[in-house]
Amino acid sequence: MAGEVVEVEGHIIDSLILAKVMDVILAAGADYKVLDVEIGRTNTDASRARLEVTADDEALLDALLVELQAHGANRVNQADAELVACDRDGVFPAGFHATTNLPTRVRVDSRWIDVDNPEMDCGLVVLDDGRVRTVPMHRVRVGDRVVVGHEGVRVRGPERPRGANPFEFMNSEVSSEKPKALLVADVVERVRRAKERGGKVLAVCGPAVIHTGAGPDDAALVRHGWIDVLFAGNGFATHDVESNVMGTSLGVSVEAGTSSEGGHANHLRVINEVRRYGSISAAVEAGYIDGGVMFECVKRGVPFVLGGSVRDDGPLPDVYPDVVQAADAMRYLLPGVQVALMLASTLHAIATGNLLRADVETFCVDINQAVVTKLSDRGSHQALGIVTDVGLFVQGLREQLVGP
Amino acid sequence: MAGEVVEVEGHIIDSLILAKVMDVILAAGADYKVLDVEIGRTNTDASRARLEVTADDEALLDALLVELQAHGANRVNQADAELVACDRDGVFPAGFHATTNLPTRVRVDSRWIDVDNPEMDCGLVVLDDGRVRTVPMHRVRVGDRVVVGHEGVRVRGPERPRGANPFEFMNSEVSSEKPKALLVADVVERVRRAKERGGKVLAVCGPAVIHTGAGPDDAALVRHGWIDVLFAGNGFATHDVESNVMGTSLGVSVEAGTSSEGGHANHLRVINEVRRYGSISAAVEAGYIDGGVMFECVKRGVPFVLGGSVRDDGPLPDVYPDVVQAADAMRYLLPGVQVALMLASTLHAIATGNLLRADVETFCVDINQAVVTKLSDRGSHQALGIVTDVGLFVQGLREQLVGP
Amino acid sequence: MAGEVVEVEGHIIDSLILAKVMDVILAAGADYKVLDVEIGRTNTDASRARLEVTADDEALLDALLVELQAHGANRVNQADAELVACDRDGVFPAGFHATTNLPTRVRVDSRWIDVDNPEMDCGLVVLDDGRVRTVPMHRVRVGDRVVVGHEGVRVRGPERPRGANPFEFMNSEVSSEKPKALLVADVVERVRRAKERGGKVLAVCGPAVIHTGAGPDDAALVRHGWIDVLFAGNGFATHDVESNVMGTSLGVSVEAGTSSEGGHANHLRVINEVRRYGSISAAVEAGYIDGGVMFECVKRGVPFVLGGSVRDDGPLPDVYPDVVQAADAMRYLLPGVQVALMLASTLHAIATGNLLRADVETFCVDINQAVVTKLSDRGSHQALGIVTDVGLFVQGLREQLVGP
Amino acid sequence: MAGEVVEVEGHIIDSLILAKVMDVILAAGADYKVLDVEIGRTNTDASRARLEVTADDEALLDALLVELQAHGANRVNQADAELVACDRDGVFPAGFHATTNLPTRVRVDSRWIDVDNPEMDCGLVVLDDGRVRTVPMHRVRVGDRVVVGHEGVRVRGPERPRGANPFEFMNSEVSSEKPKALLVADVVERVRRAKERGGKVLAVCGPAVIHTGAGPDDAALVRHGWIDVLFAGNGFATHDVESNVMGTSLGVSVEAGTSSEGGHANHLRVINEVRRYGSISAAVEAGYIDGGVMFECVKRGVPFVLGGSVRDDGPLPDVYPDVVQAADAMRYLLPGVQVALMLASTLHAIATGNLLRADVETFCVDINQAVVTKLSDRGSHQALGIVTDVGLFVQGLREQLVGP
Repeated sequence: MAGEVVEVEGHIIDSLILAKVMDVILAAGADYKVLDVEIGRTNTDASRARLEVTADDEALLDALLVELQAHGANRVNQADAELVACDRDGVFPAGFHATTNLPTRVRVDSRWIDVDNPEMDCGLVVLDDGRVRTVPMHRVRVGDRVVVGHEGVRVRGPERPRGANPFEFMNSEVSSEKPKALLVADVVERVRRAKERGGKVLAVCGPAVIHTGAGPDDAALVRHGWIDVLFAGNGFATHDVESNVMGTSLGVSVEAGTSSEGGHANHLRVINEVRRYGSISAAVEAGYIDGGVMFECVKRGVPFVLGGSVRDDGPLPDVYPDVVQAADAMRYLLPGVQVALMLASTLHAIATGNLLRADVETFCVDINQAVVTKLSDRGSHQALGIVTDVGLFVQGLREQLVGP
Repeated sequence: MAGEVVEVEGHIIDSLILAKVMDVILAAGADYKVLDVEIGRTNTDASRARLEVTADDEALLDALLVELQAHGANRVNQADAELVACDRDGVFPAGFHATTNLPTRVRVDSRWIDVDNPEMDCGLVVLDDGRVRTVPMHRVRVGDRVVVGHEGVRVRGPERPRGANPFEFMNSEVSSEKPKALLVADVVERVRRAKERGGKVLAVCGPAVIHTGAGPDDAALVRHGWIDVLFAGNGFATHDVESNVMGTSLGVSVEAGTSSEGGHANHLRVINEVRRYGSISAAVEAGYIDGGVMFECVKRGVPFVLGGSVRDDGPLPDVYPDVVQAADAMRYLLPGVQVALMLASTLHAIATGNLLRADVETFCVDINQAVVTKLSDRGSHQALGIVTDVGLFVQGLREQLVGP
Repeated sequence: MAGEVVEVEGHIIDSLILAKVMDVILAAGADYKVLDVEIGRTNTDASRARLEVTADDEALLDALLVELQAHGANRVNQADAELVACDRDGVFPAGFHATTNLPTRVRVDSRWIDVDNPEMDCGLVVLDDGRVRTVPMHRVRVGDRVVVGHEGVRVRGPERPRGANPFEFMNSEVSSEKPKALLVADVVERVRRAKERGGKVLAVCGPAVIHTGAGPDDAALVRHGWIDVLFAGNGFATHDVESNVMGTSLGVSVEAGTSSEGGHANHLRVINEVRRYGSISAAVEAGYIDGGVMFECVKRGVPFVLGGSVRDDGPLPDVYPDVVQAADAMRYLLPGVQVALMLASTLHAIATGNLLRADVETFCVDINQAVVTKLSDRGSHQALGIVTDVGLFVQGLREQLVGP
Repeated sequence: MAGEVVEVEGHIIDSLILAKVMDVILAAGADYKVLDVEIGRTNTDASRARLEVTADDEALLDALLVELQAHGANRVNQADAELVACDRDGVFPAGFHATTNLPTRVRVDSRWIDVDNPEMDCGLVVLDDGRVRTVPMHRVRVGDRVVVGHEGVRVRGPERPRGANPFEFMNSEVSSEKPKALLVADVVERVRRAKERGGKVLAVCGPAVIHTGAGPDDAALVRHGWIDVLFAGNGFATHDVESNVMGTSLGVSVEAGTSSEGGHANHLRVINEVRRYGSISAAVEAGYIDGGVMFECVKRGVPFVLGGSVRDDGPLPDVYPDVVQAADAMRYLLPGVQVALMLASTLHAIATGNLLRADVETFCVDINQAVVTKLSDRGSHQALGIVTDVGLFVQGLREQLVGP
């Protein structure tokens, strides 16, 4: 038998941290004894608990301790973190500490140092100036000092949003049977608050935003400054440009809803022309693109990343064909983002979820419940799912944030 | 080998009748030879084709001919229909002709008589006055003369709506990736046209209409005369009343979206009180119910049928606990209905679909693509599916039909 | 300000009871102070906590206390329950205590009495012999003594299944991305254990069991004694009989998978013939039905309830057209049921979920995640969802329980 | 008014070509007159029709003619195709002919030449040796002679599979309510037939194949030679390796189904180690990977393409980070593929669908109906959808193709 004492603190009851920790221990076939527990008297007081964890052998206990840490249960007795230098570019040392997206501290030279930029599924590199950063695997270089093992690392358990809100708790958080106007109003409120405190709003857009007719609404949100960063793929940008360029130049009215029948090649022509101009921005300047979401981004200077995918036609010249570079470009734009709106995007929403800190308010809007579930399953637990029609939802956002 | 000549007429190419008929023949392991075909020169001209169908034996051919008739392929040579009197209440004679919901004629005494009220899955009864009616199984009585076999029956193949429209054709008709504002506008247009020509509009409502916050919009549609008949279940009516009564009497605001958490018993209390009053109408008169969809129905004299289901609490006193009587009550209200809106209802939508003539314009609105598919699979081929959020959709209907 | 002390006990941490209670209090706009808390040292020890709840006024506090009780938080100081006699058949007294499906005790004459048959959404009637029973609204009679208010009622909070199991916890419990063979094995294990301890297994079957080809597997489970009670609707029974009767009598092979194209009227003919025999059992005896699920039920004496619904054709003579009677018939068969398998049924699954005690192990198998969510949203929190293909799932059950 | 005569031939009735053509004309606001029509007498005879199409102006007519061609309706009078040389790498000349995935012929020097490799959304390049090839936009080079406009191009309309089969027609082709064992058997039969005639079988695999426990089944299919080419992403390969490597090395049993709880970092460790080895193949040789789908691919020499995506962790060293290169690598492996199995993959399935000729038998297996719909909406009309649990489906394939 092997044993170790771990502690959790924060809103361990109502944010379910303690329950989750107990569950993980039992699910692993190990056991626990509660040593002591202090429950905050009011709902704003923090609580704290210490558990003695026992397992059949050290290997199991070690694996379990790693797991528990990801849920905010840290070993009580901790020495300095063990640091091992990389001996190969793009490869971590064996036993590297794999990060969560939660606030994390690392003990170096007997001092606890906050990790600069929490991001899940990375390693922790201690820089020469003493700072600690998360680094994705492909960017680690020979000589980087990487944290190995679970010694000297503390993770703060996740907090769920406090106060009454229309997003339900613990049952089926993503049911489609919710009052939708309320959800729109709640998202509007959070966007407003984030902007007031100087935060940025990120929109991650899938092509269905355009297909469902919400392109002009989305563009209005950009034009009026409600969206500060935009992530999307080749499809979204292409259909956005296509709906603007082809809607006026060919006489086939986008408004009639019959355009999808005609013009199977329109998106190709649009991509081809933008390639000729060299970039979306050049096509805007030349007057080829005169409206739409991408147009507004260019005009307003809203930065965007178009990440490539293997299904892309063309692609547009602004698309990153290298997906590793695309993710790095996304990382570069994330500091300051406080609200993330995932709008009918699966691929880019999950990609973005992978990069976001746990404290970014994230809303995943999709008509398909499974997409929302998938995002949460991939570790973005802070994401609140809204199962609704993205076309009508974005229209609602625009009406409330921009006006009729 | 057995053979027979069948003919189809109408828009057999573009309404896919001929293709479907060929498909059914081959799928049954039989074969066909095209005897002659006349294709209308313009898109409004009717076409006509005659096929010789051959099968391995008479039994297979007979089964196939029955099947073909359901798709509008009728035998060329027809004698009078064979009539057999029922010898038992609620049971048809063996070999009874099972109906479709398509326009049907029956040959009696060498004359072709139009069936009064096409309805699928019924029998055909020739009345003493010479009229022919569809009769559901449970209502047939000893002595009723029922059509047996496929002799002397002609069915007119289904026509699909003509002209450009935003509902796609032949591929995935129920994709969620459609311009939703256009679909709303199209449904609005059809509702307006139906009303202008004196037709009735039927709404079949599921509880999600209330859960998603569209109750007040739905009520406004009733109040302003856009809904002439309403079908629903105990759940819809209960939650409609609950959201109105409890929203004001208990201080728990429906608008906050947190009411679902509190008040797990509210719907029971509402049902209990309405039972005490004896009916929804009595509860309205007594002032207990002072708003909502059911309130507006009572005030405006819009007839409704609340069909019971085995999951019902209570139920409300207006609910038909006997489902066979409920279906009969629905049948009674259908004459004159030209547009049917199925709003987030599975059970009652399919029940209604079973009763509707093929020429009733039917829109099935649900966030779940499978529900729409199911309705179509159950034989309501005329139903156009709209995969969207019913809350936002009904709000859109109200904005365009009633105003902001 | 109004205040009251409540207590919770049991596995209040890991079954999330305490977190839920705190959440309900805050969601209602009230507040709490933790008076004391005792956490069980090991995972089998029970815990206990007392909270002082404060709200702005008595009305809000009262509503909240009712709500809290449904989650197992009971007032500390309790007098006898208030009993009010019904003054009208089928109507509870105002303020009646609405039940959950959790273990409940009522204080009468200073003694705590266990409720015989926990069922949600009922009232509590104290019988003359001192027993306390849940009674559905429609069955209460003038003079019945019904518990009113929340005084003198204690509810025990829900426990979730203990120990490691493949059903995930707290995140998306109904994801389709689970190892399916494991889920099958786990359900098999629970069925075996229930049978070993003398419990009954209930199957609630939807028509998709037949459509997906699992009819013979389902029948084998009945034949070998693994299913003790069966609930279904007209559709399931009809398609079960149709697939057996028509598969052999007409030569159209069910095995070819093309039968759905042909024979649109087959289900009607089957219903008509069974109506002629008078019952499924009579049709079995007469040899008309010689295989299938309903056949095995008749042969083995497995009781079944076929609840009517408003979409039914026919219906079969065994179907209860009165849904209130159908639910009563289902209630009659529930005692002793320890495992409930909801197989691709929405309507009857929710109906059954309404009637089940919280401690019946319930598995909801459906290819549609929304169905599973819906069941849980309706209050059947103990239901474990399995998002999979019911045809292949039931085949798996049969292979492991009956053999190849 | 502008007019032009087009003709269609082939199975224009039962493959719905003629109906679709009429529909496209009317949807565009144009009109047609049927000049003559010849319907094949038997189901194997081809048919032929000529239509005069009229539109308000030349621009509309031109756009319509392009659209009609994509459905197999070609202009009767055709001159040589117009060829324009590219003046910029990666950009087609304006007005380039955008391809479908249907058999296509181009008229050069008065001769009709078959296009080598039909692929949708490409351009047509006439090589110096007289051959005509489809070329994706990014690969066209300065000087390449590209077909412009619709003159001199003939497309053969799509044929749907003939003969009775369990895949339904024209209604909801992707309903989940199908006999699943039959669908498995049908796919098995088509795989066998393709192999017998020397064709290759392509599997496109998503991570859910592993998550649902079908990894070993999938590996057996590779090992026994039933899969000739494999396309997937970083996730599939990673989880495949993880389930094999971590299942044995860490003692956390994959079989218990609880592994997903533990080991949140396992996939990262696996990626890291394979990166250290340099490739999957090197890791196999070193004995680090000793089982699973990727292992079998390496052992058997089955070529695979792992296309990168912006959500990837790591990625594995075999993953193409450049998606344009990934698509080219996939193109390289497609010749000879006659059956494509899309197994719970959205991204890579659509990517593959974009590259496949219309005559490759394609099966899209997913538990989510929307995924199947999406593939078809993207132009892969030949894809037959199977809405089922991929875990149980692949297990079924293995049982029938490999044995128990």
